[in-house]
Amino acid sequence: MKTILEAINKPQDLKKLSFVQMRALAEEIRHFLICSVSKTGGHLAPNLGVVELTIAIHKIFNSPVDKIVWDVGHQSYVHKILTGRRNEFSSLRQFGGISGFPKISESVHDAFGTGHSSTSISAALGMSLARDIVNDKENVLAVIGDGSLTGGQAYEALNHAGHSGTNMIVILNDNEMSIAKNVGAISEYLSKMRTEPKYTKVKQDIEFLLRRIPAIGDTVAKTVERVKDSLRYLLVPGVLFEELGFNYIGPIDGHNLELLCEVLEKAKKMQGPILIHVLTCKGKGYKPAECNPGKFHGVGPYCVESGEVIKNGNTPTYSSVFGDTLLDLAQQDSRIVAITAAMPEGTGLKKFAAAFPKRFFDVGIAEQNAVTMAAGMAVKGMKPVVAIYSTFSQRAYDQILHDICLQKLPVIFALDRAGIVGDDGPTHHGLFDYSFLRHIPNLVIMAPKDEDELRHMLLTAINMNGPVAIRYPRGSGLGVPIDKPLQPISISCAEELNSGTDVVFLAVGSMVEPCQSASKLLASKGISAGVVNARFIKPLDEQIIRKLSRDVGVIVTVEENTLTGGFGSAVLEYINTQSFNWVKVLRLGFPDKFIEQGVRTQLLEKYGLTAEAIAAEVNSFVQKFGAR
Amino acid sequence: MKTILEAINKPQDLKKLSFVQMRALAEEIRHFLICSVSKTGGHLAPNLGVVELTIAIHKIFNSPVDKIVWDVGHQSYVHKILTGRRNEFSSLRQFGGISGFPKISESVHDAFGTGHSSTSISAALGMSLARDIVNDKENVLAVIGDGSLTGGQAYEALNHAGHSGTNMIVILNDNEMSIAKNVGAISEYLSKMRTEPKYTKVKQDIEFLLRRIPAIGDTVAKTVERVKDSLRYLLVPGVLFEELGFNYIGPIDGHNLELLCEVLEKAKKMQGPILIHVLTCKGKGYKPAECNPGKFHGVGPYCVESGEVIKNGNTPTYSSVFGDTLLDLAQQDSRIVAITAAMPEGTGLKKFAAAFPKRFFDVGIAEQNAVTMAAGMAVKGMKPVVAIYSTFSQRAYDQILHDICLQKLPVIFALDRAGIVGDDGPTHHGLFDYSFLRHIPNLVIMAPKDEDELRHMLLTAINMNGPVAIRYPRGSGLGVPIDKPLQPISISCAEELNSGTDVVFLAVGSMVEPCQSASKLLASKGISAGVVNARFIKPLDEQIIRKLSRDVGVIVTVEENTLTGGFGSAVLEYINTQSFNWVKVLRLGFPDKFIEQGVRTQLLEKYGLTAEAIAAEVNSFVQKFGAR
Repeated sequence: MKTILEAINKPQDLKKLSFVQMRALAEEIRHFLICSVSKTGGHLAPNLGVVELTIAIHKIFNSPVDKIVWDVGHQSYVHKILTGRRNEFSSLRQFGGISGFPKISESVHDAFGTGHSSTSISAALGMSLARDIVNDKENVLAVIGDGSLTGGQAYEALNHAGHSGTNMIVILNDNEMSIAKNVGAISEYLSKMRTEPKYTKVKQDIEFLLRRIPAIGDTVAKTVERVKDSLRYLLVPGVLFEELGFNYIGPIDGHNLELLCEVLEKAKKMQGPILIHVLTCKGKGYKPAECNPGKFHGVGPYCVESGEVIKNGNTPTYSSVFGDTLLDLAQQDSRIVAITAAMPEGTGLKKFAAAFPKRFFDVGIAEQNAVTMAAGMAVKGMKPVVAIYSTFSQRAYDQILHDICLQKLPVIFALDRAGIVGDDGPTHHGLFDYSFLRHIPNLVIMAPKDEDELRHMLLTAINMNGPVAIRYPRGSGLGVPIDKPLQPISISCAEELNSGTDVVFLAVGSMVEPCQSASKLLASKGISAGVVNARFIKPLDEQIIRKLSRDVGVIVTVEENTLTGGFGSAVLEYINTQSFNWVKVLRLGFPDKFIEQGVRTQLLEKYGLTAEAIAAEVNSFVQKFGAR
Repeated sequence: MKTILEAINKPQDLKKLSFVQMRALAEEIRHFLICSVSKTGGHLAPNLGVVELTIAIHKIFNSPVDKIVWDVGHQSYVHKILTGRRNEFSSLRQFGGISGFPKISESVHDAFGTGHSSTSISAALGMSLARDIVNDKENVLAVIGDGSLTGGQAYEALNHAGHSGTNMIVILNDNEMSIAKNVGAISEYLSKMRTEPKYTKVKQDIEFLLRRIPAIGDTVAKTVERVKDSLRYLLVPGVLFEELGFNYIGPIDGHNLELLCEVLEKAKKMQGPILIHVLTCKGKGYKPAECNPGKFHGVGPYCVESGEVIKNGNTPTYSSVFGDTLLDLAQQDSRIVAITAAMPEGTGLKKFAAAFPKRFFDVGIAEQNAVTMAAGMAVKGMKPVVAIYSTFSQRAYDQILHDICLQKLPVIFALDRAGIVGDDGPTHHGLFDYSFLRHIPNLVIMAPKDEDELRHMLLTAINMNGPVAIRYPRGSGLGVPIDKPLQPISISCAEELNSGTDVVFLAVGSMVEPCQSASKLLASKGISAGVVNARFIKPLDEQIIRKLSRDVGVIVTVEENTLTGGFGSAVLEYINTQSFNWVKVLRLGFPDKFIEQGVRTQLLEKYGLTAEAIAAEVNSFVQKFGAR
């Protein structure tokens, strides 16, 4: 028998369904998601939470005429299923497959591409204001989680939208947690609305009271009117949003299809900016995800029955080595504090948080505040370590420059997930950090060749008295021993791993290991290729570059970063200032384009950064230009 | 007779003053400011507004033990006067003089350096949390204007601070305008508190009513209790800040010294995060500034009696040429919309705003929202032009990359005040934009050689169908004719201004003109130096670089940007990919450090970017390395 889901190939197919059928559809979608994501991996829990909400949105609104913007976008799977992409779910987040985020180029139903947090209200506001200019009539919706609401940009947009008075609908998908436990005053505020009937019922209570006030004379009568007026304004649970100029509706049960449809229908007819507060349960309908929504926020392949994630290998991740080492260092140095922007687990700081709760700070999805707050702490004599994903540190570029580096404050940036991140794709790759950090004065930038070197670099950074960034890849380390005593590294000193006479690799971070393999491959072709682990992107080891220029004369820079303005460019700049015109430099890295999603090894292969590809490139470079 | 001011050389000297003396001191400070800034220029109006507030802060608190963070910092003159820097005011904002902003290196009383907006609460929060860790007891204050409150980072920090419960005091200096008329829902909210007694008196009214409710039975009694409880929480005017976890006090008159001192004293004894809402008048005490606070926000030298600004020259500024041209283009193309982040005047958009109020958007100091909102508008078919200062565009780096360029949306960035800005100094120079934009895929980057070329570039950008940035300097153009019909420029095409055989300048933007002069100076020394106006930083004119490499072989890149990762590096990268090892490249631009304040010509001289210095550099380069 054909399922209901199989008959849904576009949003219009929803229109004729009854509530009974829609409820059945919701269950079918849950089943589909749980099975499909168990094979591909992906953001399961957030999508299980918005099944009814997404069905209701597409039932009441008319995509693609009406525009739906999904904040962050990892909760857009149900939307993708309902807009004709069900059959492509086996390719979700895979190389060449559909994206785990909305993407304009993927479907007309994806009104706006997302990935980073807290952009949806700005984008929807822009669409609404533009619609008003051209006198169109479509509805514009932003769906944003309570976690994303901690990002300052969301507030900038709420502030502007509330003032503009334009017709737009913001759906606050409140599931009491973003990726980790949510933080901040707003979060407390929302949770109060959810849990305190006293608070949410105050409006009825006041009206009940007002009806009982005896009408004694003009003064009281006037006052009553005045108060009623103010109360209407003040005593709704969403007063904070009302203050920002929004009509607030809620909180409502986000798994009740009838209620959702009723409220959305009502909102469609209202004027001005509207905020609908919807309560959902992350992971809804799949016990393992309901019990552990953090684990199933973004998850690899798992066993549907047990909810056990299918593990590959026991090599510790860079994140866990970072977290463990920082914990060790913090035990000896009470000035060390750790800061994360909503990624305590992802950055490996869980143990630190447990051991030093007073020296651990999760600011929510608020990278700007994280960085400047660290500056304030550094002024007071602390050694703040801001652990942040490379791609999200882009949000704090100005704060890194203006608040940290201009003031030479000793703040350490632990840039996790640098380089290729894999299935999250172009919005999440950390392929720009060398380029957007390298020109900031006073900043030291390091990248470890393996997880053990990360430990020594962390000590080095703690010992320094100025701003420093350490960037390292996502996922497992190389499996090297990590029990050596910590040794500081001299600032700017590269490490010569093996010497060569024909050509020398000046490799950085994750690219050191493939260069070592490439060196062996080249040896088999009679090419003697040395390998230097650059360790520092800034300041460069100028001495070793001078030496390699003199002694070898053919330098191959290799980096997991865009080539534009990256590490190789730093080497070119230095060689240029020295007028070493005889030196031949081959720069390997990523081209000047956004890099698609895919498994890291696939992408390294495609872009010529495996040992084999590197060896082949160098071989032909040497054939073409010869050794010196 | 010695004035009171002359006896104030440190904050302690305030402690023994009576209120009568403090009021007299306030008048002396106003007089001092009006005279001093009339000679140096500077941010007069904001400082006249905070004279009493600053005196009261230093009277009640104990700097430098207590920490005061001034948001943006251009209102810190009174603070500087009271903390021993009165005698240095003749050097304010001058080369080698004191800064117009707080600066840690300038005084122990400058707890945190500022310049960009909305960072103060984050910094103060960091100091407070660090203080709590080490069990110190000092007070930490952030003084923030209502304009700065539109920046999302301020909200991120309020949200975190309110949740943390740490002792800190935020003083909201509410003067009803930031630099331009303030915008947004928060601004409306504040203004309602200021102007509607109905609103601020509602608490008393409610209590009046509650007293009149007859005690009829248990239900009502219980309800009354419940309601009272909620009302205490809800019915204070600062409910929005209370919701964010702050104790709100205000609004209070910011020119009443007794009241200020009383409230600050009270706040000092309170626990947790406190927000004091202070109403001030920008420009207070100087009629021309009170009448026109926008003009006297940041002002050049002026005549004290008349308030007339001393003008030099009538050459139109780049900003006004930009604004006029955009207005012309908008008359022909209804898709053009203009967006500014609180700088309608500074970016030259006043006329546009008047002519097309529905197509003009001032989002407040909210660069992130400005950029993503533009993305939303572009999706809906508009041609958004985001006019923003180079230094402030740093705030939206991630949005430019993630929301605009990743989606190839046709948004135009008009980056004003690029290069050296002069007296605002290191926090405001626009010396990084080539470097932080150049590696972003899909972005076209242009810089005009003069104000006329800016016009043609704007048309070029409008005609394009993708993201583009045009960067141009602060202040007057070169005085070239600007009445030619607009002509689009072919993407990536440089302009050969004159040819040379020994060496060729590949100059960009503001550096084209000095290179033309340098070429003449070199000719007099027998060196034939060609000049090419690069026009495009990205994509490069590869064809002309190949030609120059072949025909001349000595290329001098000149840019008003940091050399690290800048335009010259782009040229090095291209020459490297072509393996043109014979080409000698000299790169001129700013070194890898933060550049101090000073008049542009002084700084260009110091850093070797005047025609004479460029000619001298090239002369010695040619002497050293010869022509090819």
